[in-house]
Amino acid sequence: MTHKVLLLPGDGIGPEIAAQAARLLKACQEAGLDIEVEEGLVGGSAYDVHGEPLPAETLDKAKAASAILLGAVGGPKWDKLEDLSKRPEKGLLGLRKNLGLFGNLRPAMLYPQLASASSLKPELVAGLDIMIVRELTGGIYFGQPRGIEERNGERVGFNTYIYSESEIERIGRVAFEMAQKRGKKLCSVDKANVLEVTILWREVMERLAPEYPDVELSHMYVDNAAMQLVRAPKQFDVVVTGNMFGDILSDAAAMLTGSIGMLPSASLNESGQGMYEPCHGSAPDIAGQNVANPLAMMLSVAMMLRYSLNETAMAERIEAAVGSVLDDGLRTADIASEGTRRVSTVEMGDAVLAAF
Amino acid sequence: MTHKVLLLPGDGIGPEIAAQAARLLKACQEAGLDIEVEEGLVGGSAYDVHGEPLPAETLDKAKAASAILLGAVGGPKWDKLEDLSKRPEKGLLGLRKNLGLFGNLRPAMLYPQLASASSLKPELVAGLDIMIVRELTGGIYFGQPRGIEERNGERVGFNTYIYSESEIERIGRVAFEMAQKRGKKLCSVDKANVLEVTILWREVMERLAPEYPDVELSHMYVDNAAMQLVRAPKQFDVVVTGNMFGDILSDAAAMLTGSIGMLPSASLNESGQGMYEPCHGSAPDIAGQNVANPLAMMLSVAMMLRYSLNETAMAERIEAAVGSVLDDGLRTADIASEGTRRVSTVEMGDAVLAAF
Ligand SMILES: CC(C)[C@H](C(=O)O)[C@@H](O)C(=O)O
Ligand SMILES: CC(C)[C@H](C(=O)O)[C@@H](O)C(=O)O
Repeated sequence: MTHKVLLLPGDGIGPEIAAQAARLLKACQEAGLDIEVEEGLVGGSAYDVHGEPLPAETLDKAKAASAILLGAVGGPKWDKLEDLSKRPEKGLLGLRKNLGLFGNLRPAMLYPQLASASSLKPELVAGLDIMIVRELTGGIYFGQPRGIEERNGERVGFNTYIYSESEIERIGRVAFEMAQKRGKKLCSVDKANVLEVTILWREVMERLAPEYPDVELSHMYVDNAAMQLVRAPKQFDVVVTGNMFGDILSDAAAMLTGSIGMLPSASLNESGQGMYEPCHGSAPDIAGQNVANPLAMMLSVAMMLRYSLNETAMAERIEAAVGSVLDDGLRTADIASEGTRRVSTVEMGDAVLAAF
Repeated sequence: MTHKVLLLPGDGIGPEIAAQAARLLKACQEAGLDIEVEEGLVGGSAYDVHGEPLPAETLDKAKAASAILLGAVGGPKWDKLEDLSKRPEKGLLGLRKNLGLFGNLRPAMLYPQLASASSLKPELVAGLDIMIVRELTGGIYFGQPRGIEERNGERVGFNTYIYSESEIERIGRVAFEMAQKRGKKLCSVDKANVLEVTILWREVMERLAPEYPDVELSHMYVDNAAMQLVRAPKQFDVVVTGNMFGDILSDAAAMLTGSIGMLPSASLNESGQGMYEPCHGSAPDIAGQNVANPLAMMLSVAMMLRYSLNETAMAERIEAAVGSVLDDGLRTADIASEGTRRVSTVEMGDAVLAAF
């Protein structure tokens, strides 16, 4: 069966890194992978053409695809749009919500070749390998009521942080299963000393725990988790948390590695359909300069092969190619260090393809 | 006029570090400071005696005081209390709310003597000096509606993240004025690409900016702020944000310095009345062992003298005493490093008093 893959370059450096992913997909096809690749518009670039960050056409293609590869969305060009529903980010959020991509997997691992790129002392991050499981279609990102309105003679802004038991259970199971496949430690992050919604969160995690007796469950308040990530990140194996805390902690964790330009992510729904994207953003400041690091995007292809297309061997080939390029000392600007060879986006793509 | 100071030791290591603060207050009195010191119960230790984390008697004393010194609250002993309103944290939150202590100042600075204690590379943190201004009586901590209830056959938990224009303006002014006294850079942290409440936040900050033309205002999304704190913390001077984001970011920033056992904080209301407390928590795991670092608590006394009692000279004497003790190589366990002398809580108190 031919898998449909939808490539959504998006904004900023998105198109440049997506171009390298497209070349890699073609190489996979030549190596026997049975896929059909389509492209579509999302984010600011979709707004510029269709007046909408998520055109109906793109959503239809996304629904029909086995997997989606997304570059990045957003940029200052659209930051002043008064109507929040037209902003590039709503394209991304709309895809997540409409496809039910509730399970966001954000690995934060340190490439040994890049150890010196971390801002932390080497001994604290050597061998770092954390998986953050973030709930992606609920919480305060989507809670109702929300808005800005007049009350008692002045405006107030409000959002609702809300989770139901079934939403918590669903993401909890993803996290427990992930922990079973990894180091068997799961840390659930909440603010149960202040927020009722996270008291329920903690309760549901506790209720699930006996079903996964081989996994050691712990709980941590979000402020402490932010500290512990800085102090001793290797204490973590799998971390599970809600949409907002996950946004903050996964970015902090990714940055700890110094390799954020290297980190892919997956967002999965109940039927295994997934969207794959780099952890880094659209980096509008360096867009169009052929300097962005395409590796997170190329590794997103590998993650897609593994999680949505069940093509583990081909995923490993990509990961090995990236490893060998790093071994050869090739670096884009974001991961450059003394004694390595600085290459452009396209040159990095060339090198991975040559090693594939 | 005799100032009333209320000392609230609280839970965990609170009583041990408060004891050193009490000795320091006595030394200040002997040096001519006109204060009257009372003690009170708050948190778990108040719950154990009165069945309430904030007994009416404590609240009355707090209202009558010019300034409050608080150790820390909370611990596993009370974590299982079903009724959230009885938990130790509610004592702290109740004090903040009832006294209107909306302006939380959390400095994150690196003591040069402790540079090696940071988990970050020395060049990234040398000279670090950030002031986080956190809104403390609003936002999701206090927003209504909140709770856990049955909806569509299952339970849901919910909290409300809400700010009015006047609440945002009030904390914004504190932050702009702080920036004027410091490096004249203010970074407002929000999630305006997703949350309406922070769109209003950003708008109000923008509206205030022209009144402080000497301050350079910038905006940053919270996920990026968490990354930038890890990547290049010295880019920040003053940071202003809401209650929840401030909780997370101020802890991360404090931990960056590796000196969290050294950092005091202030929480002020509109009339300059303030509560002063260490940034670290109640550390129940080391409570009662005479190993906790009392310096953040003793420096909280200095911060109180400066912000609420207008006794700058005496504040400086305390800070100088702490500096000289560090110069002498005395360290509690949390900041110990090779070539320094490890001391207990009481010994550290002794040393500061001797140098005062
Ligand atoms: C672009 C933005 C809406 C998004 C989020 O907040 O989820 C991004 O930060 C991410 O983490 O994927
Ligand atoms: C103890 C807790 C309620 C409190 C908070 O979340 O505000 C603490 O973490 C702090 O930052 O002072």
